[in-house]
Amino acid sequence: MTDSFSELKPSARILLGPGPSNVHPRVMKAMMTPVVGHLDPDFIAVMEDLKKLLRAVFRTGNELTFPASGTGSAGMEMIMANLIEDGDDAIIGVNGAFGARLADCAERLGAKVHKAEAEWGRIVEPDAVERALKSAKKPKLIAIVHAETSTGVHQPLEEISALAHRHGALMVADAVTSLACVPVEIDKWKIDACYSCTQKGLSAPPGLSPVTFSARAMEAIKARKSKCRSWYLDIGMIANYWGESRVYHHTAPITMNYALYEALRVVVEEGLEARWQRHRANAAALHAGFAAMGLKLVAQEGRRLPQLSTVAVPDGIDEAQVRATLLKNYNIEIAAGLGPFRGKVWRVGLMGESCKRENVTLLLGALEQILTAMGAEVARGRALEAADAAYTGKSGI
Amino acid sequence: MTDSFSELKPSARILLGPGPSNVHPRVMKAMMTPVVGHLDPDFIAVMEDLKKLLRAVFRTGNELTFPASGTGSAGMEMIMANLIEDGDDAIIGVNGAFGARLADCAERLGAKVHKAEAEWGRIVEPDAVERALKSAKKPKLIAIVHAETSTGVHQPLEEISALAHRHGALMVADAVTSLACVPVEIDKWKIDACYSCTQKGLSAPPGLSPVTFSARAMEAIKARKSKCRSWYLDIGMIANYWGESRVYHHTAPITMNYALYEALRVVVEEGLEARWQRHRANAAALHAGFAAMGLKLVAQEGRRLPQLSTVAVPDGIDEAQVRATLLKNYNIEIAAGLGPFRGKVWRVGLMGESCKRENVTLLLGALEQILTAMGAEVARGRALEAADAAYTGKSGI
Repeated sequence: MTDSFSELKPSARILLGPGPSNVHPRVMKAMMTPVVGHLDPDFIAVMEDLKKLLRAVFRTGNELTFPASGTGSAGMEMIMANLIEDGDDAIIGVNGAFGARLADCAERLGAKVHKAEAEWGRIVEPDAVERALKSAKKPKLIAIVHAETSTGVHQPLEEISALAHRHGALMVADAVTSLACVPVEIDKWKIDACYSCTQKGLSAPPGLSPVTFSARAMEAIKARKSKCRSWYLDIGMIANYWGESRVYHHTAPITMNYALYEALRVVVEEGLEARWQRHRANAAALHAGFAAMGLKLVAQEGRRLPQLSTVAVPDGIDEAQVRATLLKNYNIEIAAGLGPFRGKVWRVGLMGESCKRENVTLLLGALEQILTAMGAEVARGRALEAADAAYTGKSGI
Repeated sequence: MTDSFSELKPSARILLGPGPSNVHPRVMKAMMTPVVGHLDPDFIAVMEDLKKLLRAVFRTGNELTFPASGTGSAGMEMIMANLIEDGDDAIIGVNGAFGARLADCAERLGAKVHKAEAEWGRIVEPDAVERALKSAKKPKLIAIVHAETSTGVHQPLEEISALAHRHGALMVADAVTSLACVPVEIDKWKIDACYSCTQKGLSAPPGLSPVTFSARAMEAIKARKSKCRSWYLDIGMIANYWGESRVYHHTAPITMNYALYEALRVVVEEGLEARWQRHRANAAALHAGFAAMGLKLVAQEGRRLPQLSTVAVPDGIDEAQVRATLLKNYNIEIAAGLGPFRGKVWRVGLMGESCKRENVTLLLGALEQILTAMGAEVARGRALEAADAAYTGKSGI
């Protein structure tokens, strides 16, 4: 080849977007573990521990709880492809890009989709779900996003799950951006199937999708009249590999499973409650800083995610230039808005390892510098003061 | 949690099964590269180089050549889900487990499958493909496995590709076990879509599936009347992310892409021709050693893969016990047979980094010890002698 390819040299970023988050050094080290075969007894031992650790993090006793071999969207597709058959009625909550993705996915798999909608930035109200349920003949499932990464909205799930059970439907939740950041209570909330990812609250690299299926979901899958449309994601075959028979299906991504294992160890050692509290505390400080700076949050008040904040871009400010400057001068990644929020909103993540006081202070300080230089009216010094006050409980904001 | 979870400590194995192969130390090191965002300019630069490197290894000018975010089977499903629409006629070569998997995958996606079959251990003859073509009304594609990992058979592709083109069908090849072990000539052989994996000839950890699509394949995809059944693997959306518009679709598995990048650098530095020659030379020595030991190869003579050998288990030998002893006493992994070969055949891989003289010598020596201890009649010392003679060109076997 005439081209020459240099050694990898990406910058060391501070990842404050909607994921990936920064990876814990212990997780980096775990990826140096020697690769063994996917049927090696040493790997099978790791698989068994992974299932236990994921059950703890999902707060479930579900036997079938494991990492699917793809990113979060593969987990979504695994659940939808195994639960949906041609012509099934599916109720999908749509109040952002990831709800819309769920609806598109269900439709491609042959579902008749009934949308329970809300404006971007607001939760889907149980009323909207009830209306969608009424339009369906025999709803197979209700699927909804717990943490809408496009809007920063924190969707309550319990009431909607109760509706699903009352109508004989399965309850499906997207916990891609919520797991290990805010409470996810699979058993308590009676969620039948749930998918997440590795690169947000868990702070491992992207590449796997932790999923969990209730006994009720497994019964529905066993009662299917047609084969799952997806060979790669067929839960019947995959459950054999992750279960006792260990029948080979596909080669598990060994190193990513090592990374997830170590990430879960870190989570369990911190404790879920402590982790949730850490996310709340840092978000409170960040939000106090934004308010002091005059930056407005976009998501519905009282329903804001601590781990992902959507911030309105001030009038007259070129949002892309702000992001480019954060990246170039400070190595900080934050993200643009999607869909109707494009150009209008920044998405700021404080997830997992990225969720720490030094990142809050750094981001507020950097933003203040950049916005001031761009001519925005920012009360100098107030943001850092407000954030600090939030940590020490002295905030009046 | 009451359970305690220890640090990862899998054994350091010598991987001589059908994959994963041992990972090059440079690839391990590349995985320590800091994780950045999937839209970070530093990652986009890696993506561009990955496409160039994969084109070189696939020997193609195909613009759309990139790693799909799943293991080899995800690449299979990506190609089938994007090319097949309900009712399409698909000709599938079936002479082993991976051809059968292709047929199952195509059927789930709505194809009418016409099998071109052969006995396990033999290639699919062009005659069988012609017969299957005759049974189809309007064949959309022919799909066949280049290196049947269940049988060790090396399928010639050129003549079958010519048949596909003559019948206006797309030519699809499974190169999961062939890429970077034996010649894979996408452009020269006019293959329209091909998928591989990272953990065999390329010697990176499992987790990605390099794929390539010809312009002809892309035209067929653009002419679809229905949406691709898979949201996760929809090539239209994914091509936007890997192409110039960089529209977010799903979060790429960043670290696995780093690993693949470094693995491809290693391959390109060695040179494909030198790599193929290395695989031939080590296989010749291994096969000479097997013959001297009285072990018989199962795959059709003249059509044997150098990187994956199927060996008949001698009468009266417990095949599982041999594998268990290899693993326990020598840290060597070889694999069992699948399907009709279960209990009758061992599968021995010499792929990528695992393909080296010291592994040939070690495996032959260890097998000789184990088989002798189990009472098999093995001419002591002959295998190592025969293997050495093969390397120095003095073999009479």
